[in-house]
Amino acid sequence: MSELLLRDARIQGHEGPVDLLIRDGRIAELRELRELREPRESPESGGDGRHGVEELGGKLVLPGLVDGHAHLDKSLWGGPWVPHDAAPGLMGKIRNGQERRPEFGVPNADFVTALLENMTACGTTHVRSHVDVDPLVGLGSVEAVREAVERHGGRITAELVAFPQAGMLISPGTEALLEEALKAGVETIGGLDPAGVDRDPVRHLDAVFALAERYGAGVDVHLHDGGTLGAWQFELIIERTRVLGLGGKVTISHAFALADADPDTRDRLISGLAGAGIALASVAPNRGLLPLRRLSEAGVPVTLGNDGVRDLWSPFGTGDMLERAMFQAKGTGPRDEDIELALDAATYGGARALALPDYGLTVGDHADLVVVDARNAAEAVCVRPRRSLVVKSGRIVARDGDLV
Amino acid sequence: MSELLLRDARIQGHEGPVDLLIRDGRIAELRELRELREPRESPESGGDGRHGVEELGGKLVLPGLVDGHAHLDKSLWGGPWVPHDAAPGLMGKIRNGQERRPEFGVPNADFVTALLENMTACGTTHVRSHVDVDPLVGLGSVEAVREAVERHGGRITAELVAFPQAGMLISPGTEALLEEALKAGVETIGGLDPAGVDRDPVRHLDAVFALAERYGAGVDVHLHDGGTLGAWQFELIIERTRVLGLGGKVTISHAFALADADPDTRDRLISGLAGAGIALASVAPNRGLLPLRRLSEAGVPVTLGNDGVRDLWSPFGTGDMLERAMFQAKGTGPRDEDIELALDAATYGGARALALPDYGLTVGDHADLVVVDARNAAEAVCVRPRRSLVVKSGRIVARDGDLV
Repeated sequence: MSELLLRDARIQGHEGPVDLLIRDGRIAELRELRELREPRESPESGGDGRHGVEELGGKLVLPGLVDGHAHLDKSLWGGPWVPHDAAPGLMGKIRNGQERRPEFGVPNADFVTALLENMTACGTTHVRSHVDVDPLVGLGSVEAVREAVERHGGRITAELVAFPQAGMLISPGTEALLEEALKAGVETIGGLDPAGVDRDPVRHLDAVFALAERYGAGVDVHLHDGGTLGAWQFELIIERTRVLGLGGKVTISHAFALADADPDTRDRLISGLAGAGIALASVAPNRGLLPLRRLSEAGVPVTLGNDGVRDLWSPFGTGDMLERAMFQAKGTGPRDEDIELALDAATYGGARALALPDYGLTVGDHADLVVVDARNAAEAVCVRPRRSLVVKSGRIVARDGDLV
Repeated sequence: MSELLLRDARIQGHEGPVDLLIRDGRIAELRELRELREPRESPESGGDGRHGVEELGGKLVLPGLVDGHAHLDKSLWGGPWVPHDAAPGLMGKIRNGQERRPEFGVPNADFVTALLENMTACGTTHVRSHVDVDPLVGLGSVEAVREAVERHGGRITAELVAFPQAGMLISPGTEALLEEALKAGVETIGGLDPAGVDRDPVRHLDAVFALAERYGAGVDVHLHDGGTLGAWQFELIIERTRVLGLGGKVTISHAFALADADPDTRDRLISGLAGAGIALASVAPNRGLLPLRRLSEAGVPVTLGNDGVRDLWSPFGTGDMLERAMFQAKGTGPRDEDIELALDAATYGGARALALPDYGLTVGDHADLVVVDARNAAEAVCVRPRRSLVVKSGRIVARDGDLV
């Protein structure tokens, strides 16, 4: 039995400060200040349990940050600095990533591990990572990411998406590899611009959804396609999700068409997403921000993600989800309730989109949490202080911005 | 005589690592690694000098960050968290700031001091701050900022701009107060949307430039006005700068019209700015980013600034100029040379725009510098690590992200 007591914590929804007792990886008790006894090494525990008390001094406790859209396998974090040199546009980046990957030994479990370490130091406790699957790399990226997650020793839980980054129909052999990845236990099947990149949206989505059905996998489709072309593909995804009863297991990533749409189209698409049980993932770009308020009102879960972090697509990013929430909030509004919605997408919304069980800060939930020196959620996002403490499954995994 | 030796520093433009000897607030020597003797308490120094050696282990030394557009007087940093509640638009924010200022005791030298401390911890060594001057606050904001700068004890040098935030012509009594501020030694006279806010661009600019001429002051005009209205006001400012020979002393802040302009108009405006010796200031907003490459080619100095930090205008901001450079680079380009231009606007470009003498990292320059654990300028902007060391006038003022 291991116990950890967090004293004098501020938790949104509780009037005053509370103590929070964690036992065996879950939140066991939550009480008014000083009501809980301190954990003690009990004779029957045999002395092998870990016990501790942390005085938080009124700091804010948030549930562990959820990165709902990462590309861990692509990262060069901890590796060489590679000046960006891709041709402009989506296809330029795809080609650059494919062609220069071997030059830097990508995928590389060392780089992925280094990035996971920084993500933990920043308070992320769960990540959904798209992982390239293509005829050149085969399942090598899946293996590298799995190795790194294993090495990281439970500090972050990870869900992988078998992702046809080079296209599926236009890249023969990819579909079979995606199926291999699912057979090997990868949880989710990815899609990529069924029209814009893969050139045959109906066949692309039919193949992706067929694989999902066959293997009980989730679906996460990158949809950069904007305007009416993107909006129409929303419809294709909504139809298939409804027909196959895959509500709660499907995500549209980026979803730029929603930002492009006129108000009527936007409302129609949002209502379709809500009805079908489809979530959205965004990386909070400068342009193409999701309308969080409307999505929240309609009950569409939104997850934020850091996207690629320092890779052959972009030199930017650090893996910090509070920073990502700030990018979103800077665009969607400065009011506390807007900033809270942005943070929600990096916490509870992400958990809903990714269907994480027992996520949160109530008794019985997994003890995944992050402590920040802030008075409320909005201040945490605006200031993004060093994370005072990060707890994963009841264990302290980072302190004062450094990995433990 | 005080001496500080920085060993094993990486400085852009130098092939290998160098040692840097600082003496009496200036860079005294710059040599290949291990060529310089360590500073020693010399008998003739009388024992009152400060001497030190810092091993940088190959970390990157940048010149001190320059915040070229701040509103120190408005900040609530270190004070209460105030949920944002302004009506939308520029006038909503202006009114909100004016009306709610007394409620929170703004201006407040304590808040300004707290913000200056965070700016120092983030590596800023010089700031140009606009300071509200209006019939309600009189010169109270000028006094509060001056008091805070004084208290901050030389860790940051500051230039103030007497700024008619509530308008000048539309706010009777303001023009006389601005003149009082200049008489009291405020270095620069500000203007604000001569057309959009003050409703009479010719009279507004004539008054501002007349005050500048009379008191030998610089000019810094906030120009949110976009499109053709903004572009036309560029012309008015260019004409006045030329006629009065004020080249090198005039800045246009925000300058959104430049981002709105068609390519021909943009080129004509840029050429006019370059010819007249006018600088631009930007806060790197999501929309309305300045075209740094073209401005650099034309020789127009650009300074970046943090704008208001946690105030009645916006809850965002921390005072970190590397973050501001990242905002700019995220919009203007991921290549190393683009990111370097963004950082230039937070360093050398800012110094040119603000006419700071002896700024830089060559022998004879003021020893204002910041040390970061990065391999090059682009990495410093992308990662924004805790500042390892901040030196102002040869004195260590922050270490590992904390004020010394």
